[in-house]
Amino acid sequence: MIKVGIVGGTGYTGVELLRLLAQHPEVEVDAITSRSEAGVRVCDMYPNLRGHYDTLAFSEPDADRLGDCDAVFFATPHGVAHALAGDLLERGTRVIDLSADFRLRDAAEWAEWYGQPHGAPELLAEAVYGLPEVNRDKIRQARLIAVPGCYPTAVQLGLLPLLESSLIDAGHIIADCKSGVTGAGRGAKVPSLMAEASESMKAYGASGHRHLPEIRQGLSDAAGRPVGLTFVPHLTPMIRGIHATLYGRLTGEPGDLQTLFEARFVDEPFIDVMPVGSHPETRSVKGANLCRIAVHRPSNDDTVVVLAVIDNLVKGASGQAIQNLNLMFGLDENAGLTAPALMP
Amino acid sequence: MIKVGIVGGTGYTGVELLRLLAQHPEVEVDAITSRSEAGVRVCDMYPNLRGHYDTLAFSEPDADRLGDCDAVFFATPHGVAHALAGDLLERGTRVIDLSADFRLRDAAEWAEWYGQPHGAPELLAEAVYGLPEVNRDKIRQARLIAVPGCYPTAVQLGLLPLLESSLIDAGHIIADCKSGVTGAGRGAKVPSLMAEASESMKAYGASGHRHLPEIRQGLSDAAGRPVGLTFVPHLTPMIRGIHATLYGRLTGEPGDLQTLFEARFVDEPFIDVMPVGSHPETRSVKGANLCRIAVHRPSNDDTVVVLAVIDNLVKGASGQAIQNLNLMFGLDENAGLTAPALMP
Amino acid sequence: MIKVGIVGGTGYTGVELLRLLAQHPEVEVDAITSRSEAGVRVCDMYPNLRGHYDTLAFSEPDADRLGDCDAVFFATPHGVAHALAGDLLERGTRVIDLSADFRLRDAAEWAEWYGQPHGAPELLAEAVYGLPEVNRDKIRQARLIAVPGCYPTAVQLGLLPLLESSLIDAGHIIADCKSGVTGAGRGAKVPSLMAEASESMKAYGASGHRHLPEIRQGLSDAAGRPVGLTFVPHLTPMIRGIHATLYGRLTGEPGDLQTLFEARFVDEPFIDVMPVGSHPETRSVKGANLCRIAVHRPSNDDTVVVLAVIDNLVKGASGQAIQNLNLMFGLDENAGLTAPALMP
Amino acid sequence: MIKVGIVGGTGYTGVELLRLLAQHPEVEVDAITSRSEAGVRVCDMYPNLRGHYDTLAFSEPDADRLGDCDAVFFATPHGVAHALAGDLLERGTRVIDLSADFRLRDAAEWAEWYGQPHGAPELLAEAVYGLPEVNRDKIRQARLIAVPGCYPTAVQLGLLPLLESSLIDAGHIIADCKSGVTGAGRGAKVPSLMAEASESMKAYGASGHRHLPEIRQGLSDAAGRPVGLTFVPHLTPMIRGIHATLYGRLTGEPGDLQTLFEARFVDEPFIDVMPVGSHPETRSVKGANLCRIAVHRPSNDDTVVVLAVIDNLVKGASGQAIQNLNLMFGLDENAGLTAPALMP
Repeated sequence: MIKVGIVGGTGYTGVELLRLLAQHPEVEVDAITSRSEAGVRVCDMYPNLRGHYDTLAFSEPDADRLGDCDAVFFATPHGVAHALAGDLLERGTRVIDLSADFRLRDAAEWAEWYGQPHGAPELLAEAVYGLPEVNRDKIRQARLIAVPGCYPTAVQLGLLPLLESSLIDAGHIIADCKSGVTGAGRGAKVPSLMAEASESMKAYGASGHRHLPEIRQGLSDAAGRPVGLTFVPHLTPMIRGIHATLYGRLTGEPGDLQTLFEARFVDEPFIDVMPVGSHPETRSVKGANLCRIAVHRPSNDDTVVVLAVIDNLVKGASGQAIQNLNLMFGLDENAGLTAPALMP
Repeated sequence: MIKVGIVGGTGYTGVELLRLLAQHPEVEVDAITSRSEAGVRVCDMYPNLRGHYDTLAFSEPDADRLGDCDAVFFATPHGVAHALAGDLLERGTRVIDLSADFRLRDAAEWAEWYGQPHGAPELLAEAVYGLPEVNRDKIRQARLIAVPGCYPTAVQLGLLPLLESSLIDAGHIIADCKSGVTGAGRGAKVPSLMAEASESMKAYGASGHRHLPEIRQGLSDAAGRPVGLTFVPHLTPMIRGIHATLYGRLTGEPGDLQTLFEARFVDEPFIDVMPVGSHPETRSVKGANLCRIAVHRPSNDDTVVVLAVIDNLVKGASGQAIQNLNLMFGLDENAGLTAPALMP
Repeated sequence: MIKVGIVGGTGYTGVELLRLLAQHPEVEVDAITSRSEAGVRVCDMYPNLRGHYDTLAFSEPDADRLGDCDAVFFATPHGVAHALAGDLLERGTRVIDLSADFRLRDAAEWAEWYGQPHGAPELLAEAVYGLPEVNRDKIRQARLIAVPGCYPTAVQLGLLPLLESSLIDAGHIIADCKSGVTGAGRGAKVPSLMAEASESMKAYGASGHRHLPEIRQGLSDAAGRPVGLTFVPHLTPMIRGIHATLYGRLTGEPGDLQTLFEARFVDEPFIDVMPVGSHPETRSVKGANLCRIAVHRPSNDDTVVVLAVIDNLVKGASGQAIQNLNLMFGLDENAGLTAPALMP
Repeated sequence: MIKVGIVGGTGYTGVELLRLLAQHPEVEVDAITSRSEAGVRVCDMYPNLRGHYDTLAFSEPDADRLGDCDAVFFATPHGVAHALAGDLLERGTRVIDLSADFRLRDAAEWAEWYGQPHGAPELLAEAVYGLPEVNRDKIRQARLIAVPGCYPTAVQLGLLPLLESSLIDAGHIIADCKSGVTGAGRGAKVPSLMAEASESMKAYGASGHRHLPEIRQGLSDAAGRPVGLTFVPHLTPMIRGIHATLYGRLTGEPGDLQTLFEARFVDEPFIDVMPVGSHPETRSVKGANLCRIAVHRPSNDDTVVVLAVIDNLVKGASGQAIQNLNLMFGLDENAGLTAPALMP
């Protein structure tokens, strides 16, 4: 069994790691830390875990204990992994960071968006961006993984085939994204109250969201040139799910787009290119480590529309983190990730 | 008191007319028709109306009775107003049609999208498109009003200032729209069940939706040239509300966009241009005849983003119909339309 | 115009007072106080009020300014009205308290449930419990009103006819109540997050809730003897609404229960006894100052079941407060309270 | 591998069987029938099953094919299992019926509640009521299982300890139950539309619901005498979940109720007696084959309150059906049923 630790396990990505790992045949959770909840059993905080982790309790972060793990997940606010990752790597523990700490290759750009200096620039060179559909081989060799953000996962997966084939104008891409409320985390904030967020839809961060540079970096890699991206996220009255609606302008006659997408993802275990004419629903991936994609070309015109859905907590966070773990440790890539989505 | 009739009052726009008219100081509902529910009291079908319309019952459509009304609203599927409007106009009754029957000026285009011949092409010349922010003076003189669709209302209001000023590339406009489930009507269909539609988000009609030609017609009028539009509607897990996110590419330096929008709508009683940096929520217009708009220019780049929200049943249907009635009969334009939105 | 002030207007009952008073023909809001939000315009906090209160801003509580009002509403946590009500009454300002401060006649019982001494026991003698269906005449003469709680309103209205007629065993009454999430207020607490409270149902306070003594007091008055009550509230995944399901055991043959209920409430403008066999929905009173009631006797057995629904923010709080104001100032009892519920 | 068939797999209990069986290590689904959808792949109807059942398609019911299965689940409206079960049993195929066809032992009572004669009274003697917490040994030997209804499961599990110990007045039990909307099935009915059922709460069937005789039968067995039960179900705005709030009057001093409940269920793999003072949430069992229970005695008075939650589609239907299958075939009782609930 692979022994793992989780740093900062009180948030939604933390409990989702526990939920998924409870079904993983080759992993056991050895430690889970939280300063604020030290001593509390995880199943007292998350009653869905009663019967699964009846003795596991949150503990103070302890480098020795974490260093005994084969791998440690960070499900923390930004900055925490900066402080702890180096020490763990030295102890031979691999690090899978679900926060934004190692997603941007450029420390200066990170500092600009997060309003503080990058805390571990020396590790950037070896950090691998954990999108298996792009970096599978690097992930297999990696010691330090930056798990992609939820929006970046959906947007990149939906646009990769078009950008890699240079079929759309890379300078003017639009990503209109809709996220369920778990995307805002478990913090107690008035706008996240059910009385405020349900029965309503709103955009936010229209003038600039922290996921923008991450998406831009990934899309630019795919395009082989800097892309221009307008990214507008929206808060949607549902618990889980991201629906990315992606618009690109074709630069020429693209050939059959359906074939392009199917070919790009033919061997991907967690990408489902749906049949021509489909409109994927976020509920079709609820709880599952999947991205379902459909591609449309309305009126056979010069605008291509890609619809991509994920569960923000699974393929957009904890499920993808486990997928990375599986690759890093030579396990079956879908170990622990085979349950169908919960629908209805 | 102005006597009105409602044809086809069992759907959501019908009950919304009744709800709003219950507060209208100068209108009384004299007749409401429904073949399927003839004899049923409206308050037995819609218990929120108990105490407001305790005697009003659905009746068989009867041209004489409707012809006695000063105005008749059609809250019907397409085709019905085609069949009845001409007769009512001859009897001197004004017609306010909430269906799509008279929205397109081109009978052939109508026939193409609705799969049947246009039933009253001879009335098209005098039908007025009931968007007061564009056609207020014509509405005042009109006998026959085509009330705009819900998506078309939000999209046009959000784009008018930009197109009238020729500030964006009219050939490549994107309208990413999110609608609550009442937009799908009160028909008993599996995809509209709560067990299917809640906790999920999906696009639909990505390859072509019936509101597309209506929006295109209105935007082309504003632009003074045919526009190119990609319109993707999404079903959103909320009862009411439309959120239109509109993307245009600036063709030059636009000046201050906030000032442009404020100036365009300065005298409009039902348009609220929100402060710089705002993100309007659909709940802020729930039950109210309002469109709230915010304009963004992310990164000061060449893409402008407009956020426009309405209640699809009010400014997107029944409230706008009453606004038209008020104008046609020389009443205060906001008579019966002054209640604040229900929030939370 | 009657000049009113609102103390503590940032919560849901505060904004609901503003929403309803915007439609009141004879009231103007002169002051609204909030220490935390002083200087903020109410329409910046609650965008649904844009266009209705464009200049009104929260101010520091100021006894002189409030004392200039004809009446002051308290929409505050418990304890605040204790501190301020006496001074206002001396200035000739009437006080309508939506908090629990003056609901219990017994200061010692209050102290026990609220964990602090009662702050104004000298005012208890003149405080009138503002349930118009019981105390209408006293309310007309009152200077100080304790507006009933939301659960107590629904439970009392549903049980009054049975207890006043001594038809049920007063010693064993069960009130199983379901409330929307606004009942928990606008405080930022994790259990009120949409990600926690939606798509779930749970009881709370099963061993004792602060509304219990208030309900018991009112029911005991109606019964003319101390009642025994089991009260279990439940958090329900909706924004507004209370559904009270009330169970009593008949002590004899009760006669026609429908007639009993209709007769009890025949002159009540805000009580709707629904037809035999009805199951009232909370949405049928959403936004409206109404209580809809149905009475059932399953299998013609010895248990009677009463179903009573209200909007917790309207008949359960702010609407009822305005109904009290109307009575106190000799206005039409339903002034400002005539809008139908928002449905769908 | 055990080969199973599913008759009538288009409804919510059918797709839930497929979802759960996809994770079952020892079962394969060999046939699934639906007259209306014959020829349609299940994954085209339920996209969450894409990748899990890519070739399985609905077929016309065919006795030979079903008779080749080791077991057949009926996820059908009432009456269907009556018609087909006998033939399957003769072919040696075991039958697990999720419908109501074999739940009542008395064919006349069945006929009364379902408005048609019982179609297979000759099978009643051998049908076993599939509540493992009561009938585990009989289930192990059974050829024909009547899977309990959703409400009956929650109500019986919550009351068993009290009735078996004769601690409450069996003549006056109250079961106030709240169900998510999947309880109403996948039929296209107006009251089940999201626009009608969300943001609202209502009781239904207050004067008599078809689950009443089934619950009464089970409770009477536990009590050893006929019970008197008032059962009021409520439609709750959530997809899944039942919350049963159960009230009984203690007939004497009961001793420690917590200990009673813990002892009763100590060996039960799918019953979770929560700690003293708990209020179980339905979301804590979402997607899981569990019943979580808490017992309260408010004010130490003579009324006991039991809170019991299940997922109506899992422990209330398909999960319990699989639990029965596991017992019938000598498998590990929790095979395929080990996934934690999906929370948040």
